Amino acid sequence: MTADKEPIVKRLRTIEGHVRGVERMVDEDAYCIDILMQLNAVQKALDQVGRMVLDRHLHGCVTTAIRSDDAAERERVIGELMHVMQERRK
Amino acid sequence: MTADKEPIVKRLRTIEGHVRGVERMVDEDAYCIDILMQLNAVQKALDQVGRMVLDRHLHGCVTTAIRSDDAAERERVIGELMHVMQERRK
Amino acid sequence: MTADKEPIVKRLRTIEGHVRGVERMVDEDAYCIDILMQLNAVQKALDQVGRMVLDRHLHGCVTTAIRSDDAAERERVIGELMHVMQERRK
Amino acid sequence: MTADKEPIVKRLRTIEGHVRGVERMVDEDAYCIDILMQLNAVQKALDQVGRMVLDRHLHGCVTTAIRSDDAAERERVIGELMHVMQERRK
Repeated sequence: MTADKEPIVKRLRTIEGHVRGVERMVDEDAYCIDILMQLNAVQKALDQVGRMVLDRHLHGCVTTAIRSDDAAERERVIGELMHVMQERRK
Repeated sequence: MTADKEPIVKRLRTIEGHVRGVERMVDEDAYCIDILMQLNAVQKALDQVGRMVLDRHLHGCVTTAIRSDDAAERERVIGELMHVMQERRK
Repeated sequence: MTADKEPIVKRLRTIEGHVRGVERMVDEDAYCIDILMQLNAVQKALDQVGRMVLDRHLHGCVTTAIRSDDAAERERVIGELMHVMQERRK
Repeated sequence: MTADKEPIVKRLRTIEGHVRGVERMVDEDAYCIDILMQLNAVQKALDQVGRMVLDRHLHGCVTTAIRSDDAAERERVIGELMHVMQERRK
């Protein structure tokens, strides 16, 4: 993760502000359903950041590893990818 | 959402700090897989907050509405609940 | 779950046929991505059935329990609801 | 998807039987929560099949495409992977 990290950092900063907004809603006794809708929105924004990081990972490390002649490294990178996506579902 | 809002606000504040930590990881070129694992952790923490808010909502507004004699209000509250849970899946 | 169960059974029967179709795709060496897209479609159809069952449950058992004067039963029904929705997320 | 397709077909056949079991539960007026728990179990079994197909895809087509010298094909395979995983979240 080197180039083009600015758009990812920027989105995370927006998410941080969004979480702060939800804190304020809770503190000011907003309606539960409105709080839940905002939590959903934060989750979707995090999904989007996850996709950006994953896309970068596939184009970077995964491509490099799979194009290498090191079969163990190829296996390691695919295993890691499967693991992080499985975790993601929970 | 009135009583016992402190534990929810506290958790959201922790999540805010966690998101800031992920920003730093991205900025310092951490390994993509490590970033994805931290994003997963943030999302699980948000799921937990969502469950706390939902539990409160079921015990509060939903119980009050369902115990009332206003059939339209009962219907409204159930519809709203279905809607927010459907959104969450996406 | 008594009245109006036909539309739910009908949808489940369609899903069963859909799963059989995916089996055939795998057996005939279809492209993995096409298989994954069909698995996604089956899961969305199951989500929809889940929503129908949940909606029925909220209008039936949950409404009855919450309108009763048995506080323990109200608590039991809400706890059960929270549990089944938490399981769903995993 | 050529070799080792038997375990995948076998699991899908089990899932088909599981869906048929849920149909019977609905038809026999089983408790909604029990039906929802079984639907969750079917979803998890489908998640597992999805992971098996994805793992096979990464080791097969994705590895072949990424190791090729056709940059457009590499891009196509990664784009397809991102697309199917994004769909999966919904």
